[in-house]
Amino acid sequence: MPEIDSLKMVDSPKTVDSLKTEVIERFGTPCAVVDLDVVDRNIAHVQALCDRAGRANRPHIKTHKSPVLARRQLDAGAIGITCQKLGEAEVMANAGIEDILIATNIIGAARSGRLAAMQRRLPLKICADNPVSLAAYAEAGRAAERPVRVLIECDTGQKRAGVETPGEAVVLAKIVRDDPALEFGGLLFYPPLDGWKATQRFLEEARAGLADLGLAPDIISTGGTPNLVNMDYLDGATEHRAGTCIFNDRMMMAAGFADVGTCALTIFTSVVSRAGATRGILDAGSKTFTSDTGGLNGFGLILEHPKARIHKMAEEHGFLDLSDCEDRPEIGDILRIIPNHVCVAVNMVDQLVAVRGGNIVDVLPVAARGRLV
Amino acid sequence: MPEIDSLKMVDSPKTVDSLKTEVIERFGTPCAVVDLDVVDRNIAHVQALCDRAGRANRPHIKTHKSPVLARRQLDAGAIGITCQKLGEAEVMANAGIEDILIATNIIGAARSGRLAAMQRRLPLKICADNPVSLAAYAEAGRAAERPVRVLIECDTGQKRAGVETPGEAVVLAKIVRDDPALEFGGLLFYPPLDGWKATQRFLEEARAGLADLGLAPDIISTGGTPNLVNMDYLDGATEHRAGTCIFNDRMMMAAGFADVGTCALTIFTSVVSRAGATRGILDAGSKTFTSDTGGLNGFGLILEHPKARIHKMAEEHGFLDLSDCEDRPEIGDILRIIPNHVCVAVNMVDQLVAVRGGNIVDVLPVAARGRLV
Repeated sequence: MPEIDSLKMVDSPKTVDSLKTEVIERFGTPCAVVDLDVVDRNIAHVQALCDRAGRANRPHIKTHKSPVLARRQLDAGAIGITCQKLGEAEVMANAGIEDILIATNIIGAARSGRLAAMQRRLPLKICADNPVSLAAYAEAGRAAERPVRVLIECDTGQKRAGVETPGEAVVLAKIVRDDPALEFGGLLFYPPLDGWKATQRFLEEARAGLADLGLAPDIISTGGTPNLVNMDYLDGATEHRAGTCIFNDRMMMAAGFADVGTCALTIFTSVVSRAGATRGILDAGSKTFTSDTGGLNGFGLILEHPKARIHKMAEEHGFLDLSDCEDRPEIGDILRIIPNHVCVAVNMVDQLVAVRGGNIVDVLPVAARGRLV
Repeated sequence: MPEIDSLKMVDSPKTVDSLKTEVIERFGTPCAVVDLDVVDRNIAHVQALCDRAGRANRPHIKTHKSPVLARRQLDAGAIGITCQKLGEAEVMANAGIEDILIATNIIGAARSGRLAAMQRRLPLKICADNPVSLAAYAEAGRAAERPVRVLIECDTGQKRAGVETPGEAVVLAKIVRDDPALEFGGLLFYPPLDGWKATQRFLEEARAGLADLGLAPDIISTGGTPNLVNMDYLDGATEHRAGTCIFNDRMMMAAGFADVGTCALTIFTSVVSRAGATRGILDAGSKTFTSDTGGLNGFGLILEHPKARIHKMAEEHGFLDLSDCEDRPEIGDILRIIPNHVCVAVNMVDQLVAVRGGNIVDVLPVAARGRLV
């Protein structure tokens, strides 16, 4: 992790201190604080990357789950949004957002009738990698009397959801074509960082098979924040979905995509115990940060004490190893921590305290938090 | 992990299937389902263990975060409840619960003024391991015009919060004694499984020092579900705090404290992809289960396919390795999963669907979910 030369978010240590005091007196700790100036810069940066690559920008709202921030992304030029769950789409639709792609196979929400209800309100785009999902979408499309637009999810190396061969994608596209309750929308990819050439081959082969069916994909969608630097490598792609880049986190720093100055979200947490000379306890644990390490050592980067290590989490305690710190935090100190994985940390809190220039300017509900279905 | 010979929760596979259908049609998946018959048995079992050991039972509500279930524990004989955060205590107090111990150092909530507000409503017990916490409590006690009852948190080997020596405990007790806004309540321990003898020595030494101050601890509190079998080993202890035992989980099974029949909570999740012959994807990932492994291999025990391994979590995907399964789940199958760590899984959801004998009988809000402060 890099050394922290300058305090972020603010102009002077005095401003940091007064912000900390205001946060703890109004909200207590732990508290998730987001710097809207950094958010605005991050949104503009990603939009510029998409514009330069000739891609539409369809940000993934799983990171912020906030209709307010989704609206900022749309106002900056995004074509629409990506959701992972129907429940997220419901929250965003309630806020007036209309162009929504759900980037997962949705089965539970379909069987509960909520997919049909949403499809009645607005035409969704949803991805599928199997006939069971397609049958569920078709039923929703029939109930809503509006065909569901389907993107076939294709796997080019991540080994998550997605058909593994272009042939399978074409078979599914044919089912879509032949069902009046469905409409073929295109192909959805999440290429591995080193898998863009393979993705290009997959796309070309799929495109040929689709042409034989009389189909052409309107949308060819790619995803991922670290993949923002790879967008030029897929000829024919039309849009990109990235989530984490609105806030960034320690994982994105480790991947070289972000630095302290582009991390918009920190958790303010109090040191509540210093039992043991080289130990300390924070009032934020796995019920604030989650246990997601993102493959990194330790949990989170402490801006005030970058050499302090959060080496373990209990539910409401973060365990500090202060062995390497010359200047050790004291009980009552408020520390600002960049989480390893911001998407899961935001999902733990009901609201984000929004600041500009060290002043609290708003409180943003994480309105789609906990929408599991 | 044990073989699953019989389906839990229900009388016959037919009942399981109809429950699954009712859950997905009413709530979708993933869905947290709790069997109230098992809950009732678990509550009665823990109460009986405490009764037999001559200890008051002060269950930790961090596991369920539900005033309804806290009330069931009190009705079964518990003396009061334990909370980890002031926000949890607020929710429980709103439901009419009056005897509340907060088992952590509370600093953020004190500085936000919420501690004083709660102390005005009812006399809290709170633990402390340092003078900064005591000063914050004293301020709240003065503001509330009612002294805060303080337990000194003592560490006998866990290396989390808690003073490391009896001498330090006595120093803090003296500060409490000498401040009219504070009242000495006793000592709080969380002994390591093999640390009960050391805890006894700590207690005796502390008790002697306290006697010199003219103090005697009313409350000597121990904690932990696995420690329920150790309660006889601390002479003088007055009460025990255990949380997980109301639901149990795969960690408690691995520790030998629980089995499938005493695990009350399962996550119902749908198989949404089977791309790859030995692979599968669930519609529940780290935003449902969290990434907390609890030190175990894989995430969760799948009741229907105990040989299937959930080897990885994305935010909304659980990754199945089906290599060892003869009978592999198909897309659309609903699987019931005992989470590794139930306390953090419950904290992800807004409600628990409550069943008895395979019928849905209630929906319990996880009312204190996300109370970080």
